[in-house]
Amino acid sequence: MSGEADFIAALRGIVRTPGARDLMDDVAVIPPPVGRDLVITHDMIAEGVHFLATDPPSDVAWKLLAVNLSDLAAKGAKPVGVILGYTLSDPEWDRAFVEGMGRALDHFGVPLLGGDTISAPHRCFGLTALGEAPPPVPDRRGARAGDRLWVCGTIGDAGLGLRIAKGEIEGPRRLLKAYRLPKPLLAQGRSLAPRVSAMADVSDGLLIDASRMAAASGLHVRILLDAMPLSPEAQGFGTDCVALLAAATAGDDYALLCAAAPDRDLSDVAVPVGEFSEGAGLSLLHEGRPVPLPQSLGWMHRN
Amino acid sequence: MSGEADFIAALRGIVRTPGARDLMDDVAVIPPPVGRDLVITHDMIAEGVHFLATDPPSDVAWKLLAVNLSDLAAKGAKPVGVILGYTLSDPEWDRAFVEGMGRALDHFGVPLLGGDTISAPHRCFGLTALGEAPPPVPDRRGARAGDRLWVCGTIGDAGLGLRIAKGEIEGPRRLLKAYRLPKPLLAQGRSLAPRVSAMADVSDGLLIDASRMAAASGLHVRILLDAMPLSPEAQGFGTDCVALLAAATAGDDYALLCAAAPDRDLSDVAVPVGEFSEGAGLSLLHEGRPVPLPQSLGWMHRN
Repeated sequence: MSGEADFIAALRGIVRTPGARDLMDDVAVIPPPVGRDLVITHDMIAEGVHFLATDPPSDVAWKLLAVNLSDLAAKGAKPVGVILGYTLSDPEWDRAFVEGMGRALDHFGVPLLGGDTISAPHRCFGLTALGEAPPPVPDRRGARAGDRLWVCGTIGDAGLGLRIAKGEIEGPRRLLKAYRLPKPLLAQGRSLAPRVSAMADVSDGLLIDASRMAAASGLHVRILLDAMPLSPEAQGFGTDCVALLAAATAGDDYALLCAAAPDRDLSDVAVPVGEFSEGAGLSLLHEGRPVPLPQSLGWMHRN
Repeated sequence: MSGEADFIAALRGIVRTPGARDLMDDVAVIPPPVGRDLVITHDMIAEGVHFLATDPPSDVAWKLLAVNLSDLAAKGAKPVGVILGYTLSDPEWDRAFVEGMGRALDHFGVPLLGGDTISAPHRCFGLTALGEAPPPVPDRRGARAGDRLWVCGTIGDAGLGLRIAKGEIEGPRRLLKAYRLPKPLLAQGRSLAPRVSAMADVSDGLLIDASRMAAASGLHVRILLDAMPLSPEAQGFGTDCVALLAAATAGDDYALLCAAAPDRDLSDVAVPVGEFSEGAGLSLLHEGRPVPLPQSLGWMHRN
């Protein structure tokens, strides 16, 4: 590929819907969902920050899509389409990215609607995902005192996968896959949405994302570290308090975090890991004993 | 401002709609438009490519919003809201950007719905604009043989403004403003939409954007250079063929380009500058004589 026109021609090969106007217009045009709210999310990723220069471009494409679909999953939304913002770089890299994005979109059955392609000195991509969901759409701010905190999915796999990708440790391929090819829990999110009082995905780390839900809801949250769902592969790296804290602060899990009334049973898809109460802040327990908060609760972008 | 949390707190100050969920959720949730199609566009801008490091941050914010609203204008769409993708850099710069974005959003009466904020080594911003428009929404691909080509707005002002900004020439402040603070022609777009067979905005240059409309419609387009609408300020820099070609290839005009049936009169808001015919490609006339095509028809991003 030698530039914008070639890249757009390649993108055209992965278009599956008339609303994309064959990428020949500056906009996408779609009929609005009927009887559903429109749910919109946008995530950006930059090289060296959210992905490594050595990550396969097709995996970067997958991850960019997956992290956005995870936000829709956490609202019980069905994806309607995505818009891609792309910085051109190396033609081979760009070609592999488009192929990977096409495979990922087909995997999740989500159409590419359009986007923008620019030159820039550094790889930085954005993706807007549109979804539809029956109202009321779960909010991060909806937890109530007495609600239990549930996790759907496992915690810590991607953190270990990142360490494998960096060559810091050796470990099973499934953990590397959890980091590079996260799976948004779309079906689980749709099943949970009508039963929760609040829901969000775990993108920056269980502790920080649970804290945010508590803060947004004006509550305190207590988390039982030993109740956290770990995969068998992650358990292989230890289940002591230090290992659990590492898992709970690593991020990139794309699990779902729910608050639900104490009489709600979500155990068909989730595991209870704590509860909300009046107050503010976060407290941690391990084997019934209080654990001091770690210095960092997860991933925060800083200047 | 010292990081992501402070930036989002500042952004919260410019939120005007409950659909933004006070920027505490990962998504925006809005009721879908009724009886209207949903129109979605996304444009990215990077420092050194689309804006200069010396441009005031508030002007960069305005421009990012304006270029997206211009795409909605070209579809006769009413803006519904925008989603911002932002790379944090210098706290003072970020603060000025948010203030400028707030003023620009209020100026156009468009709500901020949400977005994403990341760290990155280079300033690169994306904005997704959502709009609603009565179907059928004008397409770039809709021109028919025999249609006249019309321009709403003026051509070449921003190109001269960029040269003023770079210190290459001196000129009136209004031209610099045309480059830094373009005005999307939203009302004109809504007035034109029911009367055109194709419409798009002029973002990369009149010649290249008209060529794209012709190519997308499977037609040839002929442009009369001396019919192009120039502002009095631009006319001050010459109206000979060289000056007209410079204006027609400079880009950043955010005028509207329409194809309309020969019996349609758009002269209340636009000026006829050419016509479409069977065939392919672009031809230029000046004072009735053919003009060779310039090497570059406008702005194309290259690897």
